[in-house]
Amino acid sequence: MENDNSSAFSAFSAVQADKLYEQVYDYVQERIRRGEWRADEKLPSVRKLAAELQVHRLTVFKAYQLLKASQAVYVKDKSGYYVSPGSSLPAETRDDPIVLASVQGGSLSEIHQVQADYQYSKALLDPNLLPNHYFSEYVKKVFDLYPKVLGTYGSIQGDMELREALCGYLADQYHFHLSADELLITSGSQEAIDLLARVLVKPRDAVLMERPTYSPAIDVFRGRGANIVPIEISESGYRLDEVERLMQSYKPRLFYLNPTFHNPTGYTIPAEQRKRLVELAQQYQCLLIEDDPYRDIYFGKKPPLPLFAYDTEGWTIYIRSFSKYVAPGLSIAATACRPPVMKHILKARSLSNSGTPLLNQKIFLHYFFSQRMQQHLEKLRIALAIRRDIMEEELAAAGWEWSSPEGGFNLWVKLPETVSIDRLLVESVKQSITFVPGSICDPLKSFSSWIRLSYSYLNEQQSREGLKRFVGLCRMLERWE
Amino acid sequence: MENDNSSAFSAFSAVQADKLYEQVYDYVQERIRRGEWRADEKLPSVRKLAAELQVHRLTVFKAYQLLKASQAVYVKDKSGYYVSPGSSLPAETRDDPIVLASVQGGSLSEIHQVQADYQYSKALLDPNLLPNHYFSEYVKKVFDLYPKVLGTYGSIQGDMELREALCGYLADQYHFHLSADELLITSGSQEAIDLLARVLVKPRDAVLMERPTYSPAIDVFRGRGANIVPIEISESGYRLDEVERLMQSYKPRLFYLNPTFHNPTGYTIPAEQRKRLVELAQQYQCLLIEDDPYRDIYFGKKPPLPLFAYDTEGWTIYIRSFSKYVAPGLSIAATACRPPVMKHILKARSLSNSGTPLLNQKIFLHYFFSQRMQQHLEKLRIALAIRRDIMEEELAAAGWEWSSPEGGFNLWVKLPETVSIDRLLVESVKQSITFVPGSICDPLKSFSSWIRLSYSYLNEQQSREGLKRFVGLCRMLERWE
Repeated sequence: MENDNSSAFSAFSAVQADKLYEQVYDYVQERIRRGEWRADEKLPSVRKLAAELQVHRLTVFKAYQLLKASQAVYVKDKSGYYVSPGSSLPAETRDDPIVLASVQGGSLSEIHQVQADYQYSKALLDPNLLPNHYFSEYVKKVFDLYPKVLGTYGSIQGDMELREALCGYLADQYHFHLSADELLITSGSQEAIDLLARVLVKPRDAVLMERPTYSPAIDVFRGRGANIVPIEISESGYRLDEVERLMQSYKPRLFYLNPTFHNPTGYTIPAEQRKRLVELAQQYQCLLIEDDPYRDIYFGKKPPLPLFAYDTEGWTIYIRSFSKYVAPGLSIAATACRPPVMKHILKARSLSNSGTPLLNQKIFLHYFFSQRMQQHLEKLRIALAIRRDIMEEELAAAGWEWSSPEGGFNLWVKLPETVSIDRLLVESVKQSITFVPGSICDPLKSFSSWIRLSYSYLNEQQSREGLKRFVGLCRMLERWE
Repeated sequence: MENDNSSAFSAFSAVQADKLYEQVYDYVQERIRRGEWRADEKLPSVRKLAAELQVHRLTVFKAYQLLKASQAVYVKDKSGYYVSPGSSLPAETRDDPIVLASVQGGSLSEIHQVQADYQYSKALLDPNLLPNHYFSEYVKKVFDLYPKVLGTYGSIQGDMELREALCGYLADQYHFHLSADELLITSGSQEAIDLLARVLVKPRDAVLMERPTYSPAIDVFRGRGANIVPIEISESGYRLDEVERLMQSYKPRLFYLNPTFHNPTGYTIPAEQRKRLVELAQQYQCLLIEDDPYRDIYFGKKPPLPLFAYDTEGWTIYIRSFSKYVAPGLSIAATACRPPVMKHILKARSLSNSGTPLLNQKIFLHYFFSQRMQQHLEKLRIALAIRRDIMEEELAAAGWEWSSPEGGFNLWVKLPETVSIDRLLVESVKQSITFVPGSICDPLKSFSSWIRLSYSYLNEQQSREGLKRFVGLCRMLERWE
């Protein structure tokens, strides 16, 4: 009967390979999960559901038996099958009836939607720090060189000319051995993380993440159903014995890490740990996703080489965003990985968009490799170091704790434990001040006394003003407690 | 024991709410599915797996019992648990050990990777049909008006100025009642389809699709685990009684349709059916995703209004790509939908990228609403109608069957049944000719005698040359059979 092709429901079978009773099983389970059928509600009778789905009654019976075995339903003597309590999602996580989002979280993006005069929540570059008046020259150049650039779709993997130039750059700067086929251009690093999660992570896979970490990455991996396994990051790096223990116990599919001017803490993993991390990745077959957007924003000496440079076996994937400081409006990032991973990324990407627009890639190419860009970068580092110093000066008055970052855009600050961060956020927003509460950056939603303050967005004067207010506000709240 | 917090595996519980034995169940099942444990292979003993996962033996036992109930494993008397045949993926669909792609298919993108002199497979506009020499003027204008455009991130939903302009345009042209909050700008329509699939489709949801249809959309919905329910499209539209029956029986979450100059057939759903489709959608609570990239490419009279114009209840989502004919290099598409759906799309998008680059949106805005664009569009329609005519002339000689399309880029052609399309494709590629086999456009992978030929890419002379060769090749194959 399960192969009865005259039944409408069995048309599913032509498309999907699963057995018919499994389809019915999933059908029922999904409706329970969504709360369409509630706890202790009676399921349709076998006869009724069989008629509805146009399958044989035995098929429904088998599905119900399976649901019973998995404790999703229970049987009340003679009267039928009932939904077990706890099988549906809690009411508050359920969505509008017509929409079922697979995505959770997004609290960071909520904070980012707040329009504030004193914006310390966005780790974005102040647009005034970019050589805006020169950009149009590069754009003109691009139209002269590629007159049909707006008529042409980009390729899925990215413009070959740009990929070749970047391969040369990565070899020169960090000794990467790469061919253009091993480089992907995406519209920002977020797209790369999202594609990697789609390709690499299945529900229940363990994913190792730093604690704290870049919060949208938590949301992306959670959205794929991953189990997040946290590893502490401190000023001296990770405890490598702990990394090994976690790799051994959880067999994580990947370790997402941001080892250089880490967001939010600003910490940098020392060179000697990098080499060992790559060895551990190889030993435990755990891919390393190295997110590296702040590398060029160093204030003292250059940071150690990327992990990717130490990897000869292909266990490291390197994501390098240039959006942060080259030209946010172009949204260009590059991902380096070996062919087995690349093949799958390209397949996934071909279904999600038609590639980063060619215009953006060509403008980036001509600007990034120009003399002017390199000169500008020097100035940018100085400007950002000054902004960091100003922030530290203002906060010193408050007596809070932090480690001074040697690069990047962020200060990770510990406030007195008597201050409620939630309350502080509410009061700050009233005064047009924003920051990121530490708990958002934590897979375990802890770090209740920590906050991230970005010094990249406001100019010196604004930043001082806002921080004076902010420190004052904090003190007032402390007194109230 | 399941709450034993000293066990490493139970740390999962802190993060995810599921019961421990269910986690073990999933853990085992996933490894079987991936083929890490093969058919008829013995599973680790209860004792061994319990030690490995650091859970109690009873937990593993319970998981194994559940696996037995779901027939994923079987018990061989006394000697233990074994993997049931058929529980793992077939070897050829399994991936390299380190990578597990969630994405299937991509055959269209494979064909598109073929470099050919006679390119009839890509439904892309010939870049020579665009006013390339004028584009740089608009770009200059954008830099004059928005000097910091490259320093600024786009917003997740899209540039407000562009959204407002498009709302006005859609109201004016098609009587849409829309606010800018109900419009999303994406980098092409593929991104919109992908976001909608993420937000709306859960595994096992029924998704109604035309047969044939736009093949990457099949791959996207399949990738989300949807069950595709096909509905035939013909020159006179759909059989509405059949649409109703399918909505009634399968309760599809959505119907993805391309009702105007349909890809690949070129058919247009008549106005009277459109109104009724919206009623059916409301009645059966089935969202309509109306993909409308070819609307402006009409050769005779203008097509009927979009379904969205008939919908007062919010069951239609309208995707309008402008990539196809305005400026492929900008990759701009707009999606109109009501707030409950939009809310979730924005959440999903914030995790997948930082929005369509602002530069691209501003250039599009100034070009699309210019006089020149509208004049150019007139010429474009004439040029494409001529290319269609030439294709029809050349094919007429062969005696094949098709309906002449009144708009769009494609001809849907039936070849003699004696010709093997697979063989024809192989031989064509050898002669530097490409086309799309009909089976790729079919959720049921049938349509074995049909092909899609796009007349949008090659100029008149090239097109004639290639088609003469193609018809000749076909005849030769016919004689061989």
